Amino acid sequence: MNERLNRLANLPLRDNLQGLEPYGAPQIDVPIQLNVNENTHPLPAEVHRAIVEEVTAAAVGLNRYPDREFTELRERLATYLGHGLTPENIWAGNGSNEVLQQILQAFGGPGRSVMGFPPTYSMYPLLASGTDTAYIAGQRSPGYGLTAADAAEQVRKAAPNIVFLCSPNNPTGTALGLDVVEAVYEAGAASNTIVIVDEAYAEFAHTGTPSALSLLPGRERLIVSRTMSKAFALAGARVGYLAAAPEVTDAIRLVRLPYHLSAVTQATANAALKHVDALLANVEDIKVQRDRIVNELTRMGLSPASSDSNFVFFGGINDTGAIWEGLLEAGVIIRDVGIPGHLRVTAGTEAETTTFLVRLEELLNQAPPTL
Amino acid sequence: MNERLNRLANLPLRDNLQGLEPYGAPQIDVPIQLNVNENTHPLPAEVHRAIVEEVTAAAVGLNRYPDREFTELRERLATYLGHGLTPENIWAGNGSNEVLQQILQAFGGPGRSVMGFPPTYSMYPLLASGTDTAYIAGQRSPGYGLTAADAAEQVRKAAPNIVFLCSPNNPTGTALGLDVVEAVYEAGAASNTIVIVDEAYAEFAHTGTPSALSLLPGRERLIVSRTMSKAFALAGARVGYLAAAPEVTDAIRLVRLPYHLSAVTQATANAALKHVDALLANVEDIKVQRDRIVNELTRMGLSPASSDSNFVFFGGINDTGAIWEGLLEAGVIIRDVGIPGHLRVTAGTEAETTTFLVRLEELLNQAPPTL
Repeated sequence: MNERLNRLANLPLRDNLQGLEPYGAPQIDVPIQLNVNENTHPLPAEVHRAIVEEVTAAAVGLNRYPDREFTELRERLATYLGHGLTPENIWAGNGSNEVLQQILQAFGGPGRSVMGFPPTYSMYPLLASGTDTAYIAGQRSPGYGLTAADAAEQVRKAAPNIVFLCSPNNPTGTALGLDVVEAVYEAGAASNTIVIVDEAYAEFAHTGTPSALSLLPGRERLIVSRTMSKAFALAGARVGYLAAAPEVTDAIRLVRLPYHLSAVTQATANAALKHVDALLANVEDIKVQRDRIVNELTRMGLSPASSDSNFVFFGGINDTGAIWEGLLEAGVIIRDVGIPGHLRVTAGTEAETTTFLVRLEELLNQAPPTL
Repeated sequence: MNERLNRLANLPLRDNLQGLEPYGAPQIDVPIQLNVNENTHPLPAEVHRAIVEEVTAAAVGLNRYPDREFTELRERLATYLGHGLTPENIWAGNGSNEVLQQILQAFGGPGRSVMGFPPTYSMYPLLASGTDTAYIAGQRSPGYGLTAADAAEQVRKAAPNIVFLCSPNNPTGTALGLDVVEAVYEAGAASNTIVIVDEAYAEFAHTGTPSALSLLPGRERLIVSRTMSKAFALAGARVGYLAAAPEVTDAIRLVRLPYHLSAVTQATANAALKHVDALLANVEDIKVQRDRIVNELTRMGLSPASSDSNFVFFGGINDTGAIWEGLLEAGVIIRDVGIPGHLRVTAGTEAETTTFLVRLEELLNQAPPTL
């Protein structure tokens, strides 16, 4: 591998890539994978059947380019989201990463900046670097919270071209109040700042948690991004999307690669969107397991963050490496997100969650937590 | 639409996008579509069956992220290409546009440049703009040819970071001699220039036309890009790929979005690659029609370029707009690529090609060509 790195160093890589390593969680094949916030429930049979049917039909025309405007998919996504949205408000890509990259290509770039509030989704600085947009790291309060006044003040001072607000936040799991989104949007008025609310995990929020979708009317600089990877159990299909003012989707049309969304991807997503109820039933199961994890970790003396997502971020671990390794030995992989004393676990099925909790308690009995 | 454009103008678009319109040929629904160089032969039944089978299996695991390294696909593509290539030499993306964008993200960017030789694939300057890479337009000889000495001299003078050589060239259809690729590669030694040979249409070349794949050994700055959209009749599936030194694929891993290639896309491509013979049989049919078009257009007094692709570029038209419209009235859409006196037509099935030729001759009888 060293020789390969030397050979890489001889290529004329752009400066900001020199010495980097590719992003991505280790893909380790163990029985219980709770490390990348997938929906560990397999697709319901009726959804699998629908996908096969729809792809079978779409495959007949695969010699032709796909619908460049993915019209049916935008219609179905608008209907699913509600809030009076129409297909004109919707855009989609190969995973929300591509959608976010397109937003940065349209509104970021050399001489421009994007602000995030770490710890947050670790792709944000990479997407910034990939589009040569300067990344500004904002500050959270000690417990990883973010108040409206604090966030607005930081945006006012930094005057970034774009802001990422991740809600529920990854890796902490907590949703932002809409007051934070409103305050950041107002604070960005002077700098004409695009505000992206990344709601990848929105469907897992506690009942009654409002979505930033409700803030879209009259806010043409606001973008809400979503994904079918989590609630819809379609991480393998790579479908992310956004809702925003129609002119935002027009802006993205200027940077999107033509025909970026394949006919097979469109067919898969359309099929799933015909079976929203079956898919969201699994979401309810996962929320039960997520709340169970929070309760059990608290009982064990750990400090889990309040979670509106399908994962739980928890502190109080003396030796994160030992706990991570100990779980792996039992066939359970979770995520060390690089924050001292903390780990992140995805809420799995009931059986997976039980295995995780039982093994974790055994490990903690050998090395008690400290808060 | 004007109001929508006004609203777009109020958004903080990056400077180089101001006033642009989205790229893309008109998607007009007519019976005979010979405008975007698709493979107009439907997928063979055995390929359709294989795709459905493979996707049915892959859909079971769609709740999980796909293989980030698309290992099976890289193995199959290496085997297909031959030339002693291994999976370490292969990279793939959602269409060759994405692969080319990734190359520009790795080796281009602000302060860097990419050179192309227009008329050539119209996405090159757009990919340059999307990655903030300066685009340098090289010169061709009057008949749109490009000699080794001329190309090398231009590359030596301009010293770009990247060069695009499209072979067979789109829209002219003619393949470059390997001497041009060798000379450009040598000329780029001093500037450490990455040389991309875009062989999207390589499978349609006349028998005996060598591929730049044969030049890869010992040339770590050389990249050959291909697509499954054309010869493999999979434009709708969006699979482009490249072959290069292993360190080039390592460089692209630094800029690729994680899990960019969906499990459904991987399954579709793998299925097709199990049926190469059936797919390439259609290629032979198309080559016959392509040669027929060249011969017939010559007989009609037009001047078609020599074509190694699945399309023919021809001059000698007095009024391209009238011919284009006249064909459209007969249900045939071809492409006006914006070069005075010239049009481009895709070689379709035998019946489609006949309809095109008959109608064109009628139109020419009303308005004879001038050479």
